[in-house]
Amino acid sequence: MAGRHYVKFTFLKVDPAWRRRDQEARRLDKTEFAAACNDFAEDHFLRAYSLVGTRGDTDLMIRCVAPSLDPIHQLHVVLNQSGLMRYAHTPYSYLAMTKESVYSDEQQPLAPREGSDRRYLIVYPMWKRRDWYLLDDSERMRIMRGHIAVGRRYGSIEINTAYSFGLDDQEFVVSFNADDPGEFLDLVQELRGTESSAYTLSETPIFTCISSSVERALDALDGETVAAHPTAS
Amino acid sequence: MAGRHYVKFTFLKVDPAWRRRDQEARRLDKTEFAAACNDFAEDHFLRAYSLVGTRGDTDLMIRCVAPSLDPIHQLHVVLNQSGLMRYAHTPYSYLAMTKESVYSDEQQPLAPREGSDRRYLIVYPMWKRRDWYLLDDSERMRIMRGHIAVGRRYGSIEINTAYSFGLDDQEFVVSFNADDPGEFLDLVQELRGTESSAYTLSETPIFTCISSSVERALDALDGETVAAHPTAS
Amino acid sequence: MAGRHYVKFTFLKVDPAWRRRDQEARRLDKTEFAAACNDFAEDHFLRAYSLVGTRGDTDLMIRCVAPSLDPIHQLHVVLNQSGLMRYAHTPYSYLAMTKESVYSDEQQPLAPREGSDRRYLIVYPMWKRRDWYLLDDSERMRIMRGHIAVGRRYGSIEINTAYSFGLDDQEFVVSFNADDPGEFLDLVQELRGTESSAYTLSETPIFTCISSSVERALDALDGETVAAHPTAS
Amino acid sequence: MAGRHYVKFTFLKVDPAWRRRDQEARRLDKTEFAAACNDFAEDHFLRAYSLVGTRGDTDLMIRCVAPSLDPIHQLHVVLNQSGLMRYAHTPYSYLAMTKESVYSDEQQPLAPREGSDRRYLIVYPMWKRRDWYLLDDSERMRIMRGHIAVGRRYGSIEINTAYSFGLDDQEFVVSFNADDPGEFLDLVQELRGTESSAYTLSETPIFTCISSSVERALDALDGETVAAHPTAS
Amino acid sequence: MAGRHYVKFTFLKVDPAWRRRDQEARRLDKTEFAAACNDFAEDHFLRAYSLVGTRGDTDLMIRCVAPSLDPIHQLHVVLNQSGLMRYAHTPYSYLAMTKESVYSDEQQPLAPREGSDRRYLIVYPMWKRRDWYLLDDSERMRIMRGHIAVGRRYGSIEINTAYSFGLDDQEFVVSFNADDPGEFLDLVQELRGTESSAYTLSETPIFTCISSSVERALDALDGETVAAHPTAS
Repeated sequence: MAGRHYVKFTFLKVDPAWRRRDQEARRLDKTEFAAACNDFAEDHFLRAYSLVGTRGDTDLMIRCVAPSLDPIHQLHVVLNQSGLMRYAHTPYSYLAMTKESVYSDEQQPLAPREGSDRRYLIVYPMWKRRDWYLLDDSERMRIMRGHIAVGRRYGSIEINTAYSFGLDDQEFVVSFNADDPGEFLDLVQELRGTESSAYTLSETPIFTCISSSVERALDALDGETVAAHPTAS
Repeated sequence: MAGRHYVKFTFLKVDPAWRRRDQEARRLDKTEFAAACNDFAEDHFLRAYSLVGTRGDTDLMIRCVAPSLDPIHQLHVVLNQSGLMRYAHTPYSYLAMTKESVYSDEQQPLAPREGSDRRYLIVYPMWKRRDWYLLDDSERMRIMRGHIAVGRRYGSIEINTAYSFGLDDQEFVVSFNADDPGEFLDLVQELRGTESSAYTLSETPIFTCISSSVERALDALDGETVAAHPTAS
Repeated sequence: MAGRHYVKFTFLKVDPAWRRRDQEARRLDKTEFAAACNDFAEDHFLRAYSLVGTRGDTDLMIRCVAPSLDPIHQLHVVLNQSGLMRYAHTPYSYLAMTKESVYSDEQQPLAPREGSDRRYLIVYPMWKRRDWYLLDDSERMRIMRGHIAVGRRYGSIEINTAYSFGLDDQEFVVSFNADDPGEFLDLVQELRGTESSAYTLSETPIFTCISSSVERALDALDGETVAAHPTAS
Repeated sequence: MAGRHYVKFTFLKVDPAWRRRDQEARRLDKTEFAAACNDFAEDHFLRAYSLVGTRGDTDLMIRCVAPSLDPIHQLHVVLNQSGLMRYAHTPYSYLAMTKESVYSDEQQPLAPREGSDRRYLIVYPMWKRRDWYLLDDSERMRIMRGHIAVGRRYGSIEINTAYSFGLDDQEFVVSFNADDPGEFLDLVQELRGTESSAYTLSETPIFTCISSSVERALDALDGETVAAHPTAS
Repeated sequence: MAGRHYVKFTFLKVDPAWRRRDQEARRLDKTEFAAACNDFAEDHFLRAYSLVGTRGDTDLMIRCVAPSLDPIHQLHVVLNQSGLMRYAHTPYSYLAMTKESVYSDEQQPLAPREGSDRRYLIVYPMWKRRDWYLLDDSERMRIMRGHIAVGRRYGSIEINTAYSFGLDDQEFVVSFNADDPGEFLDLVQELRGTESSAYTLSETPIFTCISSSVERALDALDGETVAAHPTAS
């Protein structure tokens, strides 16, 4: 199992009361939060995303990856110390793990892809219907190949599949790197007609996440510009 | 894909505590919110609606359209700076995109319709059953034509279909321009008997939105009249 | 469509914090709320109900009727100005419209019944299964007549059917005037055995509402007696 | 219908903020609540239960019975005056009515059983599947007799069935007097194998309620002992 | 029934406002909470777990076991006195009981296993489909043996099955001792293909709980280190 990684998606929503704090207090709250992220990112993969304008129930997402649960637990303990977490809650949280795919003959990376930081990350938890798992292997392989063939025609979109069986509520956390959400929309609509689609039990909520630095994602919470915060580089 | 637009429906609910603020503070809170909307509207399509009296879980809806996600994200960042958003949350939010219909032989506008600002906009997210997508194209075309034929008999009602596959939880956001909600009620009831209706998985919540200026929709929140606010023209 | 009316059911729940306000402040909060109701009732139908002791999630219901949405919107704007709405929210809200029934050969009044103010109003939203709408008209007529025949044996109970297709989440809002909820219980239990019952998709939540003046329904919120409030006659 | 009674189950959850009040204020808040219960209990049946340690979403349940809705409404109006209700809400509430059973040949008491105050009361709302009601009477009788036969082998457990059709969301509120919850667990598990079990649509949430005086149930909220409150006998 | 034990899983979530209290107040709040746990643990089994970083809706879980409900009720009464419970709620709570399995020929301990304190405890409530209970005993035995055979190939994972029929919403509370959550993920994914899996109605939410002392689980709430709290050994 060497090489498998834990992946954690933590979605935050800021209490409107936080915006009533004065600007200097908010600046400090954000700096503490960013410092925790940046410390983690020295040794591990961490990306931040803004959801301001794409969702109403979450403002910011942190995606972090590590070979064991310990650093992920530690990161969240330290985040809890930040001023921001005194005024924020976590409406969505997904814990998952990378794992080799049995379907794809392409290399499925066990660690986060290098160089794939596109403008958007689209994320959703997924459950398959139970009758899917009772099909025999060759039948599932045949159906998945049809699914994969459609995806290949949208070559600019990269898929990352993570597995949550027994770790968290969902079975999979699927995420996509995309520069053009409209192209992803067309792909998903086309996939509705594939045989595999009928075996999906649930694939919501769907999050369109805007790639960002940690600092920019934080600044989108109260509309301060990055330039105004020289300490958060 | 030139000409396709993003459409965002943002539904707000004001915290009852906001109404405890004094009148001048509320006036300023609303002015800041309106200013953000009006800035956006200089270059883009933006409409406001009041839901006071039609729903209990949301008070106001902003519908905005842009050719990319950037201005929509920026609008919501700036709204977050307004005093109103220190006392409001977003119980519903729908992100969608315009796209040419494969069913209708009428022109389906990719940008918002001009001159269709009727008294009401009725909006709902929609999901079709998965077996719909497994029908072959001619069968789906036949069924949709029956559906469209009923709609044409209610000629004063205009439909706007937007697509959310992969961008947000729902598959479609459907909205209707209408002057008489009672006529729309009759249409929807008649559509229950069409073949296409049996393929609908979900089409709730349904929002009856009252067309309004931004300022009037804001003033409905605390019962101040528009005339009392000369700065918010 | 002359004669059809909009019907709005607005259910309120008071924040426990409201009960911490001093008695004089609460008296004023209630007076403002009652004044808005009484202004509306000068020209329109409005009834108030208490749910204290019958439900845990709502305390008070206002049922109002008007030939257009405008006065209903205006009433709720003015209610938002009252002190009570600074400490209350709206857990349930149903918008509907009267319409002639295709099933009953009895006169179904399009305006609220006169002289039917019984001690209780029992209200619920209803959805039928989609296969109901695919039955042909004569089959639906046959099934509904069996349903109606049972209802007629409970002659003291009057039914009011309102239609919400396309205006709000539910398809119907059904309400019953009754003096004896136990008799209504027997009727509903007996209806479970009718053919029509199998076509019901959902008919909850069910609200047993106690008929009341606006003032008494407000006074039930904090246990003040009506006699103590000479300004609210 | 002489002899039928209304039964109301009111479940309370105290706001954590209530525990921040000083001890004397909490003592007074509880005394007012207990006084309202004790006044009602002079003329009517009322029992209190603690759920501290058995559930996380409710702390205390009041079960009250009366031949009409009026005293139940009055009790809840007076409870709303108590200090405790300024810091509590009602996460669950069930309104029901006693009624003679058509299945059992045992006497089903229409008023609360005398002398059946066991250590625990287990309560749940229940809905049957709609196809249950389409079976003919003899078939339903046969199935229910199998169900009842299993129950009789657990002779120390008494069942109380109340009916909610048309009064509240559920169809039944079923409650059981038991001294040993483990014995009830065995009964319920064994009933899963009966034919009647397949006709159950829902029977959750399930509440294991600890019989208590009103005063002890209140004291369990903040850990004060009964002895410390001489005014609440 | 000698030897059967009650098992209670209490999941807590701290209000963000708690983190705004000063460090000394938080230290005292945690000390009181830990003292209640430690008193209980003198006579009974009690374990604590942190969920910081694995879930977003709960921070800490207490798992306690006793031969009767009384000490479990008492523990939660005393916890309610602690400062921490003035700023915390209980989003999940599961009450269950140990019981001999009819399927396994291995000894299923009725009291908590000794010496099985692995790094993680994975917990979920479970419901089986009603048709499962209508299978005859030999068929259920055959299906469960297939399920158990898969589990035995993951020998380092121990299962604890507790029964909730009639005591709480779920039918079972299943928990697993594991050192490597990735191995558990592989087991659960493989079990999806077994016949028994098709009879599962629901097995979410799934909680990955990090074994901890009470004090460490509390310190993870606000990021204080254990060493800083000499009174909480």
